[in-house]
Amino acid sequence: MTGRPATTNVVSQRRPDVAVVGGGPIGWAVAWRCAARGLRVVVHDPAPGSGASHVAAGMLAPVAEAYFGERELTALLTESAGRWPGFAAELTEVTGADIGYRTEGTLMVGLTVDDLAEARRLWAYQQELGLPVTPLRPSPLRDREPALAPRVRGGALAATDHQVDPRRLVPALRLAAERAGAVLVAEPVRRLSDVTAGATVVAAGCGSAALTGLPVRPVKGQVLRLRAPDGGPPGFRHVIRGYVDGEHVYLVPRDSGEVVVGATVEERSDLDVSAGAVLRLLRAAVDLLPEIAEYDLVETLAGLRPGTPDNAPILGPLPGHPDVLVATGHHRHGIVLTPVTADLITDLVTGEGNSDTLLAPFRPDRFADPPGGLGAPVAGTFPHSTEENSWN
Amino acid sequence: MTGRPATTNVVSQRRPDVAVVGGGPIGWAVAWRCAARGLRVVVHDPAPGSGASHVAAGMLAPVAEAYFGERELTALLTESAGRWPGFAAELTEVTGADIGYRTEGTLMVGLTVDDLAEARRLWAYQQELGLPVTPLRPSPLRDREPALAPRVRGGALAATDHQVDPRRLVPALRLAAERAGAVLVAEPVRRLSDVTAGATVVAAGCGSAALTGLPVRPVKGQVLRLRAPDGGPPGFRHVIRGYVDGEHVYLVPRDSGEVVVGATVEERSDLDVSAGAVLRLLRAAVDLLPEIAEYDLVETLAGLRPGTPDNAPILGPLPGHPDVLVATGHHRHGIVLTPVTADLITDLVTGEGNSDTLLAPFRPDRFADPPGGLGAPVAGTFPHSTEENSWN
Repeated sequence: MTGRPATTNVVSQRRPDVAVVGGGPIGWAVAWRCAARGLRVVVHDPAPGSGASHVAAGMLAPVAEAYFGERELTALLTESAGRWPGFAAELTEVTGADIGYRTEGTLMVGLTVDDLAEARRLWAYQQELGLPVTPLRPSPLRDREPALAPRVRGGALAATDHQVDPRRLVPALRLAAERAGAVLVAEPVRRLSDVTAGATVVAAGCGSAALTGLPVRPVKGQVLRLRAPDGGPPGFRHVIRGYVDGEHVYLVPRDSGEVVVGATVEERSDLDVSAGAVLRLLRAAVDLLPEIAEYDLVETLAGLRPGTPDNAPILGPLPGHPDVLVATGHHRHGIVLTPVTADLITDLVTGEGNSDTLLAPFRPDRFADPPGGLGAPVAGTFPHSTEENSWN
Repeated sequence: MTGRPATTNVVSQRRPDVAVVGGGPIGWAVAWRCAARGLRVVVHDPAPGSGASHVAAGMLAPVAEAYFGERELTALLTESAGRWPGFAAELTEVTGADIGYRTEGTLMVGLTVDDLAEARRLWAYQQELGLPVTPLRPSPLRDREPALAPRVRGGALAATDHQVDPRRLVPALRLAAERAGAVLVAEPVRRLSDVTAGATVVAAGCGSAALTGLPVRPVKGQVLRLRAPDGGPPGFRHVIRGYVDGEHVYLVPRDSGEVVVGATVEERSDLDVSAGAVLRLLRAAVDLLPEIAEYDLVETLAGLRPGTPDNAPILGPLPGHPDVLVATGHHRHGIVLTPVTADLITDLVTGEGNSDTLLAPFRPDRFADPPGGLGAPVAGTFPHSTEENSWN
């Protein structure tokens, strides 16, 4: 909703206020927020939306993802999830796009007695934190989702854990950003010194490591996309997260009939789809919801999440380079953390707001002595396969 | 190897001696044999090689496929398999193409005691027929294929059951046929009366039903293609056919590193890949050969075999239409039956040879009262998805 034409001529004519490196959800959300405040913004990405977000399921799950020993991360997840309803509404209003935001909530279930015992330890922890977890016995569980296998021993409802469709979200964010005046430069950034702007935001996912020297590593995830038969919607409405004979699996139903099944968590950087991973995911999914066997398998895909040593994102100024702001390392949480990341980074760019408390645990300087940086640029490029974003 | 240019101008100038409907392996092999005898041949297919042969694994398995109550079919399979070494050598000599013909043989194995008991009943029957089946206890079995799971209870060697790569075979057959002067007309045939030729050969797979009124029905099969990691060859050399907790599965290793895993047998005509089928195939494959879990899953695909009421092919003149020769209904056996089918049909076209005894059980007139035919053309077309061929 700006009169400024979104062409690259603008860029060549005048130095931008903000250069965002990475056209995933984080990058575009930052660009949208900054452009909406009147800043001149460019986004650098040779293939926007083709990285981790293309693989991500889009669970917004601060409760189900609240793990032992990650209290500060849980607080940030909860904060960002709380911003999602308004963020989704604003984005839909600005763009008219359907981003697949759904609020039926998440069912966490255990297949066997052992699975249920493992799950219950976590649910007790989540309840201790004051998070809204409601244990359900098998009968009310199946009342909510009759498609669940009779074998499922029990579960819990996380009513506030919602979902969005990342493949709809990223184009909507890009549209919002471009309407606010942001401009895409569809080329890779090989080093930050090549970027000329008032502030540079590094939202380049796994590619952030080579650009900043920060300890971001790829964490591979394999995901399946199924489709309910005969063009109908899936036979279940909640996001289902299962503990299944020691395996963890989730199933995310979309209105379109699509079901996303994921995800492996592997410390490797290839994008191959392995027979073993597909077997484990399908077996667990069918054990939880037998009707899944009748669904079409329409896609098998691997992506790379940007992981960090403490599993938490890296948000804030790069040590020694106050004009470089980092927004990466979102690991499994890139989609849920998009609103809060965009707000916090935009506050840092503009010097407005008061985000110190929220940001403190996630600042880049918590990793002592990064082995590179702008002064000693790390060799490497920013390939589109490692574009910002992690997923959930 | 002919001076005649392979262009459609030839066709338009003079009525061909033979029109082959269907550019799968059967169609091209017939075309090759007829053209090599000096006949003017055209092949009609909008998308040659894109039907069942594109999905087929290419097992040449008269022994492993010798089932109870199919003695006449077994005799034909054995006859054709016996022609394969010469057929493969001649095709390779004429074209220079590597068609992936491999002669390591086939191991049939049973995972559990029950699986082994089921398999042994069939092996006993195959031995009664005089077929070369050599039972193997677990120790010599694993000496032959160390990659087999320790759980495998026993097996048998069918040393003469070989393999070929259908995706290499069809282009080689086409090349041989075209070098002998055959010409492709890349358009569908909607009714046989549209074809003008001395003799018409219907090798149109599932599409043969609409063209001839014969009882050919689609039998769906789902197949996976895997790839051994790191670009190496698969960790096993034999074709493996397994009885696995009541499931049947085969694994066909290629020199390229590819492994074909199949196949479901389903009485339906869609081409969807189902989660349940992929799960069953992968589970059985990994149970037999644990290293398969580390392989890449590179393709999931479904195809339609042309089945018949007695599971045997339909070979010979269409009742009431002596100038129409049928070569279809090969079901799971299209690849192994390619040489004998080509020879027999060519003999019928030329009036040479003496194939009555071999052909007798497979003549179209064994199906009384076909509900259509040329006199009463059946509505329908010959889509490329139902092109001749079945697979194995």
